[in-house]
Amino acid sequence: MNFLIIGGDAAGMSAASRAKRNLPELNVTVLEKSHDVSYSACGMPYNIADAERNMDDLVARPASVFREKQGINLLTGHLAESISPLDQTVSGVSGQGQPFSFPYDRLLIATGGAPIVPDIPGKSLPGVMALKSLDHGRKLKAYIANQNVKRVVIVGMGFIALEMCEALRTRAIQVDIIKPGPVFLPWMDAALADIVQKEVVSHGVELHFGHDVEQVDSCAGRLRASSPSLSLDADMVLFAIGIKPNSEIAAKAGAALGPQQAIAVDKLLQTSIPNIYAAGDCADAFHVVTGQKTWIPLALRANRGGWAVADTITGKPAELPGVCGTAVVKVFDCEIARTGLNEKESKHAGFLPVSETIKARSRAHSHPGASDIWVHMVADQKSGRLLGVQMVGREGVAHRINAVAVALHNKMTIEQFAQSDLAYAPPFGPVWDPLLTAANQMLKKI
Amino acid sequence: MNFLIIGGDAAGMSAASRAKRNLPELNVTVLEKSHDVSYSACGMPYNIADAERNMDDLVARPASVFREKQGINLLTGHLAESISPLDQTVSGVSGQGQPFSFPYDRLLIATGGAPIVPDIPGKSLPGVMALKSLDHGRKLKAYIANQNVKRVVIVGMGFIALEMCEALRTRAIQVDIIKPGPVFLPWMDAALADIVQKEVVSHGVELHFGHDVEQVDSCAGRLRASSPSLSLDADMVLFAIGIKPNSEIAAKAGAALGPQQAIAVDKLLQTSIPNIYAAGDCADAFHVVTGQKTWIPLALRANRGGWAVADTITGKPAELPGVCGTAVVKVFDCEIARTGLNEKESKHAGFLPVSETIKARSRAHSHPGASDIWVHMVADQKSGRLLGVQMVGREGVAHRINAVAVALHNKMTIEQFAQSDLAYAPPFGPVWDPLLTAANQMLKKI
Repeated sequence: MNFLIIGGDAAGMSAASRAKRNLPELNVTVLEKSHDVSYSACGMPYNIADAERNMDDLVARPASVFREKQGINLLTGHLAESISPLDQTVSGVSGQGQPFSFPYDRLLIATGGAPIVPDIPGKSLPGVMALKSLDHGRKLKAYIANQNVKRVVIVGMGFIALEMCEALRTRAIQVDIIKPGPVFLPWMDAALADIVQKEVVSHGVELHFGHDVEQVDSCAGRLRASSPSLSLDADMVLFAIGIKPNSEIAAKAGAALGPQQAIAVDKLLQTSIPNIYAAGDCADAFHVVTGQKTWIPLALRANRGGWAVADTITGKPAELPGVCGTAVVKVFDCEIARTGLNEKESKHAGFLPVSETIKARSRAHSHPGASDIWVHMVADQKSGRLLGVQMVGREGVAHRINAVAVALHNKMTIEQFAQSDLAYAPPFGPVWDPLLTAANQMLKKI
Repeated sequence: MNFLIIGGDAAGMSAASRAKRNLPELNVTVLEKSHDVSYSACGMPYNIADAERNMDDLVARPASVFREKQGINLLTGHLAESISPLDQTVSGVSGQGQPFSFPYDRLLIATGGAPIVPDIPGKSLPGVMALKSLDHGRKLKAYIANQNVKRVVIVGMGFIALEMCEALRTRAIQVDIIKPGPVFLPWMDAALADIVQKEVVSHGVELHFGHDVEQVDSCAGRLRASSPSLSLDADMVLFAIGIKPNSEIAAKAGAALGPQQAIAVDKLLQTSIPNIYAAGDCADAFHVVTGQKTWIPLALRANRGGWAVADTITGKPAELPGVCGTAVVKVFDCEIARTGLNEKESKHAGFLPVSETIKARSRAHSHPGASDIWVHMVADQKSGRLLGVQMVGREGVAHRINAVAVALHNKMTIEQFAQSDLAYAPPFGPVWDPLLTAANQMLKKI
């Protein structure tokens, strides 16, 4: 049987490795357009922060291992261009300009996502960057070094923008961040977003709201990012306004698309076309809180999806229950975490949301070194269900969110969650964990 | 209505405060034998570690606040000696030697626990200590200062022993720890216990296994703790071999006792005697994994129990589902956490346990500053249920355990838990959280 995979990143290589492990006689072929496979894309900002480190430290497993040790037919520099579901083949062109065509019995589309760069004048100037692939990272890091970059304009204020902002400040590079909207982290509770915004500003970063960059110009050896209302000069302009799913090849083949044009898949990660699966950033997923389709491109989901497809096609069907959108990010000395829905998303999904924001301490009363932990909790007034949590603090946030994620998988009510036997010791929190304090406060409202 | 409470620590004062808040017209009387109420007993080792800090920093709320602001009739220095269920009164004697008798409509026994000190010659010598109450803490700390303590023998190797060991080493005091048994942390997986043991030994602590201290002598101004096989000289001997529930007064009144002679209570925390409740370290609880009775005296449970009794007697019956024994402790630079059952406990409860121990990293591949995280997971071979987890590491252990606790409350199988959407970012863990890696490995076994 031929298992063909388009895309050699997290989902694709996870699927290839696991399929070979499950069924060594399987023919596994991976078509990867770049020359990089299996690297930690999420690690790029931290690598860029350290001028001494090599970008290739992020490679978890080189292509040779997949080829020689695991027996995977890994073809880098191979751009897949079209799928023919009728004769079950994938066609494209190799880096040498040679056309190719591969047959499949089962196909996995793991084409990932692409950074959104608006189609504006100057978008292709040297020094105008995006950050998604390792090649992006190499190019960006080399540019900082070679062009002696002292000032960067980041367009967008999401997680990647904030991680890159920290990375650049670590290297003493001036940073302006600019976005069209008026609100910092609009998905987040205002009180919590304010804490993060202050943290960013306290590190000398300039935030500019309400300006939509409409062109980038090169002038006097530098770049100028201009909106109708503001122009910012810099040595580099980084677009970090989000990513979109690489679903074109699937759509062209007739596959149904879901939210945000991601490839629609069922719980077995099957697309609407027989024998074609999709996993990773290019595919949609079920949200465990709403039961509805969503598109939340994150690394764990990609790896897990690759494994699940491998299991399914090698004879052990693996259904994925879905995601709750658990995410965590470090921004300077702030830990930010979220899982589940915010109030707006809850309303949109048909719940009657009620929310509660509390401030607790990261260590016990009287224990030295404590700092504030903010918890914003959302529940459904009708059913009493826990719908989501956001947290911000200097310590103890990142891993605490996981308890909420597990609660969401189990559709716990606030009343049930409030009875959870969570850990306590003075160095790690108050007797009542901040999550329990939030739940206890919430109980008074619902 | 008279709500009478014996014991003014975590459970007692939580109940008193909440009952008054729920129902301001309620007569709430608390009989506390000492002069301390509402303090962080768990904070004592950390306070002792810092010679400059005052022990009374641990008081969360002084007695005057309970009396004047909350209207609680808080009687310190009042030792309750007997309960008469027939005429619903509690009798005892005050610090001034005055006998007293108080009527109750509802009684809460919140007498806590007492440190176990074996009845051996020398147990009352100056410098022979235990640590449970704030008075113990004051006495111990003053003794260190006044007697210029340079060397301490700790009898017992549990959590308090290890926390005190760290506290004393922080003050450059030499520490020997001695226990009768042959194994360090016998409830813990051997591989994990070995990590902790090495951490303790690396801080210059001497561990002595297989020696049962049978007497303490005073000689030449110092103390000598002697077993038949070993004698250790020190300036102080600290017994930290565990606590027992203060259930005598309840037993004398005819209340049924449960595991370890703790006062038996139902899910509403009612004892076997009408109108008498028990909460905190003196009472037993249901284990959410086994459904059976257990006695795991921990702070959160005490606070939660106090609240539940207050709610119940003021008209909002509050059933507690139980505990899973979630505990966390810091020992030098190690974080240790556990929840649920170990293999032995699982077998004892009728499960068919299978376990898996994995080593993962605390941060992503290639992220600087990572250290090892060890996860020991126990599951039931028959049902596939997750039964318990132990973890050891230098970071990221304490709060991670909470995800497992929530999973135990929901009786999740390993297969379900392995699908949890846990958080990932490079500074906080690998893409596959160590808990997920353990669950994935476990799936191969069951």
